[in-house]
Amino acid sequence: MFDDLLDANRRYSREFHDSGVAGIAAKGLAVLTCIDSRIDPLALLGLRAGDAKIIRNAGARVTEDALRSVVLAVNLLGVTRVCVVQHTECAMVGTTDAQLRARMKAERGVDAAGWKFLTSTDQLATLRADIEAIRACPLLPADLTIGGFVFDVHSGELVELESLATMRADETS
Amino acid sequence: MFDDLLDANRRYSREFHDSGVAGIAAKGLAVLTCIDSRIDPLALLGLRAGDAKIIRNAGARVTEDALRSVVLAVNLLGVTRVCVVQHTECAMVGTTDAQLRARMKAERGVDAAGWKFLTSTDQLATLRADIEAIRACPLLPADLTIGGFVFDVHSGELVELESLATMRADETS
Repeated sequence: MFDDLLDANRRYSREFHDSGVAGIAAKGLAVLTCIDSRIDPLALLGLRAGDAKIIRNAGARVTEDALRSVVLAVNLLGVTRVCVVQHTECAMVGTTDAQLRARMKAERGVDAAGWKFLTSTDQLATLRADIEAIRACPLLPADLTIGGFVFDVHSGELVELESLATMRADETS
Repeated sequence: MFDDLLDANRRYSREFHDSGVAGIAAKGLAVLTCIDSRIDPLALLGLRAGDAKIIRNAGARVTEDALRSVVLAVNLLGVTRVCVVQHTECAMVGTTDAQLRARMKAERGVDAAGWKFLTSTDQLATLRADIEAIRACPLLPADLTIGGFVFDVHSGELVELESLATMRADETS
């Protein structure tokens, strides 16, 4: 069932050059982003393999598991900066867990009662709260640099949380 | 603190071409892999942006959060195959949580008492158990295709779990 991927990997490994980089993030960076297939986290930050630890889950959320990865990256793997990169048109934004559960029931006959999907109806507030959750983690140093961003899947632009908040305020004033 | 990355993103977005792909995984694939900076999940499987959902956490472990992402990917985002890709020289393998906590204490002065890091002293057994955890999830269909692999960070090769188990058995017999 995976022959296509294993064939592709044979071609990849034939050309593969062991760069000799270690598991340490060369640019001291960890990026937490979404599983969305349109996001190429290294490319959009101008990075190369070896530069950064990449953590990905649905919605780019600071879950207990994402924090586990950040704590390991910071304390053992040379990370000093963390970027949380959510994105536009995220399937987890502008909907609710109840709506997703209803869709799963209707479209797939799946009973997701009790499941938390971590949807958001206010992306900027969610992103801000998630960044605070990293900052509040007692296993991370007070001087850890943490940034929040939204990646525009149509323009390729990365916009900082505070710039977005300002734009949003201007629009509604 | 993020000017270098934002500058790099400005260059990226100037060249960015909106491919028009949606959030659906074009090849119906989800890949769960580690945060390790040496892993380029799309490239090593011969894929392009848009083909697959990428989930990443420390150790490529099937945590509650990883399962949340898999459940969303399968039930709402067109995923029919899941690859779990652990790797050689993983900082989470061949060590214990107690050892990592001791290292954090010694190197960083951090008290990680009570934290679970999900280390493994038997990578193949861990990978097999994690695949079973996906298979046992009641929100996933019985015919979901699930594969376990270990990526060799030096050769670029992806080896299937069962091939590795056979090799391991031959070595010890």
